[in-house]
Amino acid sequence: MNSSIIRYVLGCVLKIEAVLLLLPCIVALIYTEQEGLWYLPVAAASMLLGLLMTRRKPKDSVFYLKEGCITTSLSWIFLSFFGCLPFCLTGEIPSFTDALFETISGFTTTGASILSDVEALSHCSLFWRSFTHWIGGMGVLVFLLAILPLSGGSNINLMRAESPGPSVGKLVPKVKYTARILYLIYFGMTVIETILLLLGKMPLFDAICTSFGTAGTGGFGIKNDSFAGYSPYLQWVVTIFMILFGINFNAYYLVIFGSIAKALKMEEIRYYLLTIAVSIAMIFFGILHTCASAFDALTQSAFQVASIITTTGFSTTDFNTWSSSCKIILVLLMFVGACAGSTGGGIKVSRFVILFKTVKKEFTSYIHPKSVKKIQMDEKPIDHETIRTVNVYIITFIVLFVLSVFLISFDDTDLITGFTAVAATINNIGPGLELVGPAANFGFFSHFAKYVLMFDMLAGRLELFPLLLLFHPSIWKDLFAYKKSIRNHKKILRGGKKG
Amino acid sequence: MNSSIIRYVLGCVLKIEAVLLLLPCIVALIYTEQEGLWYLPVAAASMLLGLLMTRRKPKDSVFYLKEGCITTSLSWIFLSFFGCLPFCLTGEIPSFTDALFETISGFTTTGASILSDVEALSHCSLFWRSFTHWIGGMGVLVFLLAILPLSGGSNINLMRAESPGPSVGKLVPKVKYTARILYLIYFGMTVIETILLLLGKMPLFDAICTSFGTAGTGGFGIKNDSFAGYSPYLQWVVTIFMILFGINFNAYYLVIFGSIAKALKMEEIRYYLLTIAVSIAMIFFGILHTCASAFDALTQSAFQVASIITTTGFSTTDFNTWSSSCKIILVLLMFVGACAGSTGGGIKVSRFVILFKTVKKEFTSYIHPKSVKKIQMDEKPIDHETIRTVNVYIITFIVLFVLSVFLISFDDTDLITGFTAVAATINNIGPGLELVGPAANFGFFSHFAKYVLMFDMLAGRLELFPLLLLFHPSIWKDLFAYKKSIRNHKKILRGGKKG
Repeated sequence: MNSSIIRYVLGCVLKIEAVLLLLPCIVALIYTEQEGLWYLPVAAASMLLGLLMTRRKPKDSVFYLKEGCITTSLSWIFLSFFGCLPFCLTGEIPSFTDALFETISGFTTTGASILSDVEALSHCSLFWRSFTHWIGGMGVLVFLLAILPLSGGSNINLMRAESPGPSVGKLVPKVKYTARILYLIYFGMTVIETILLLLGKMPLFDAICTSFGTAGTGGFGIKNDSFAGYSPYLQWVVTIFMILFGINFNAYYLVIFGSIAKALKMEEIRYYLLTIAVSIAMIFFGILHTCASAFDALTQSAFQVASIITTTGFSTTDFNTWSSSCKIILVLLMFVGACAGSTGGGIKVSRFVILFKTVKKEFTSYIHPKSVKKIQMDEKPIDHETIRTVNVYIITFIVLFVLSVFLISFDDTDLITGFTAVAATINNIGPGLELVGPAANFGFFSHFAKYVLMFDMLAGRLELFPLLLLFHPSIWKDLFAYKKSIRNHKKILRGGKKG
Repeated sequence: MNSSIIRYVLGCVLKIEAVLLLLPCIVALIYTEQEGLWYLPVAAASMLLGLLMTRRKPKDSVFYLKEGCITTSLSWIFLSFFGCLPFCLTGEIPSFTDALFETISGFTTTGASILSDVEALSHCSLFWRSFTHWIGGMGVLVFLLAILPLSGGSNINLMRAESPGPSVGKLVPKVKYTARILYLIYFGMTVIETILLLLGKMPLFDAICTSFGTAGTGGFGIKNDSFAGYSPYLQWVVTIFMILFGINFNAYYLVIFGSIAKALKMEEIRYYLLTIAVSIAMIFFGILHTCASAFDALTQSAFQVASIITTTGFSTTDFNTWSSSCKIILVLLMFVGACAGSTGGGIKVSRFVILFKTVKKEFTSYIHPKSVKKIQMDEKPIDHETIRTVNVYIITFIVLFVLSVFLISFDDTDLITGFTAVAATINNIGPGLELVGPAANFGFFSHFAKYVLMFDMLAGRLELFPLLLLFHPSIWKDLFAYKKSIRNHKKILRGGKKG
């Protein structure tokens, strides 16, 4: 295994994080908050380690899928570790476990919080908290690919490991330009949302943080009541932008380059919008009798549906008090998730579309045993490889899900809390039901349970395989074998010199 | 579609049921119960309809998978309809919906009951209730195949539609003899269990009904406290026989014909026994502090684990009061289920073994992208077809499961009751948690929810596809097209005569 390229990329990630950590310092300057000072030593440490790790350029910059997966998982772990230190140092989240939980929840765009009083945080920490969503939404490695002069065509394996969805398409032949286009769209849409929020008389700080949370489909609020206190106009702006950020970014690329018709024809987007419409309608009728007006019921159902299916996790009401059927719809939407290639989490609409088509094909084969029709999506046949990976993904997902529910059951919370806590973290949503409902937080879990949930958040964001691969014994064997071979190589060289 | 063969087989099934309905009459004679009289008219009606339907022998006895599926689903629906009438007529279960629920629960070997006071039933009805388990356990069509002189090799499609598991193996080249051997093993083991129960001083009637419930992995008890009142010896006999009836019957065939080593080598059985052992151990330590002695804890954990994994559903304790982690283990076992080719329900151990092997292979391919190793089971490669069907099965299962939970959520029970009620019916177990726990019953559900659960029981027993196929529009189009073609054919004949 090529461990020097892994080291090099990790170093670059740390250097980027060092720069990003300076932003909260600026916020602290504006609000004259002392807490901002603590971000400086962390940025310095991150930069120093980054410089050390990138001192030597790797000779061989080839990236196989294996290297891509390991680099990605380790990057996210490094990012979260350094990202959580300011929270500890400022004393705003004294426990290291809690700070790490909050940071991983931020980077993975989960939005599950251990804080009961968000409003007590300083502005710079609130900013950093929401900013982690924005970084994590599109992915830091995608950013790296956009700016890093890595040669070779194998970088797609880095992007493949970080980007959500069953298959990664390059928009343009070069990975670098694909990454740049993605970030441009991402940045542009964030700016537009901020402006629309400002037009609704939201303060600038709130607007920026909210846009970060929406763009990354994160869900950290800066108010204790999440989004309930804002005006219906603001709620609708956020609703629409949550839905927009849950759409496959390829569609925006198509729209920008003039093929709106092609974008609208994408099957995944159609099913995604259909699911949203049907869910809003069902919940609308389910909560109508409890709301002040039909408009109010529509606003609430649309906001909550958009928030859950895009795995954002903002809330305008405590849906824990809704009827069983409404709650079940929300729990199902948690698993559905957004489109592949968006910033949202969950299992992804396209995976479900592929699965349903597989089942439909099977039924047809019962009735017409001799029919041989390939499954198609967007009028292109789906290859056997993709179907197999989707199936394996679902199975692995279920296994990890079940194992996590079992592990956190040692906290002896009720089964619904356990089930939805795992569902809300592995799908990167945020709130669940009962004790982890929108009006509650994750603070009461034991340290052990918190680490399980952190693992789930990372596994969910990186789509399982990259993170799980770290636990494969042969990966470590490979790594040590590589180091050993280098040592042997050096020994031989030295021996050669002696002789 | 060959609808005349479907009609013919359905007629045979009704004739068999008519004969079986005479058994409770004999029980009524012994106990001099008037209720037994009501079984006679139902038997007569069933026989009459059966004779009408088998009056004309079908010219073409070819059975495709499609015909096999439809015959199977309709047989089970007919069986349940006639089987429930005595309960209504005797007035012991006045509501038709409830009686149908109880009977479907019996035939599908679920054991979920709507009765709060079982002991109030007459002996003949108690006998019929437990006897439906025994009939449903091995399957009425398998019985039919054992005795019916159906020609042609395509009968395997009937057996395939009724037998549980991802693939049906014929023990001997002829389906008829395979069916006979299966029923012989089934009958023999039931007799042995009855004798062992009698040795433990259980009354004959109790012993027979208990054996029926164990053999079919059904779970209807004849006492209000299920099995809690019996001695530890009796509990252990039932525990062991539940586990034995959850084993693939092919293993017994191998044992009888001398290849014990081969039987012990079957991977599915090894994983099945391993799962049981691990679960018992975990629950043992989980409940140890609440039990009178270690032996008591072992008896309780072994009984409950065996009862749930084999999807029998007897209980010796109210596991609803256990800790969250113990309850989660039980819920997981509900889905695992017994071995393929046994009388148990659930998703089946072999399907999980195949799934885990698929996932393992995927991980290996990440690390060694060029390796091409086929998945093996019992040292034979599993063909791609089987893996695909297993995947489709899981997906369909999840879809049906989720849809059912959603539909019964309109009853507005808590989510755990809804979730485990569906889990307990679709996996043919019986008791769930909370309101449908072992100390409770299914009586409180609305009629609508009961029909949903009945559908789940049938779908679970017939392994989804046969029943779901009934909802495929082209099946009905085919059926009507066939009738129309016959009518046209007759018209042409008549026209020919005229002309």
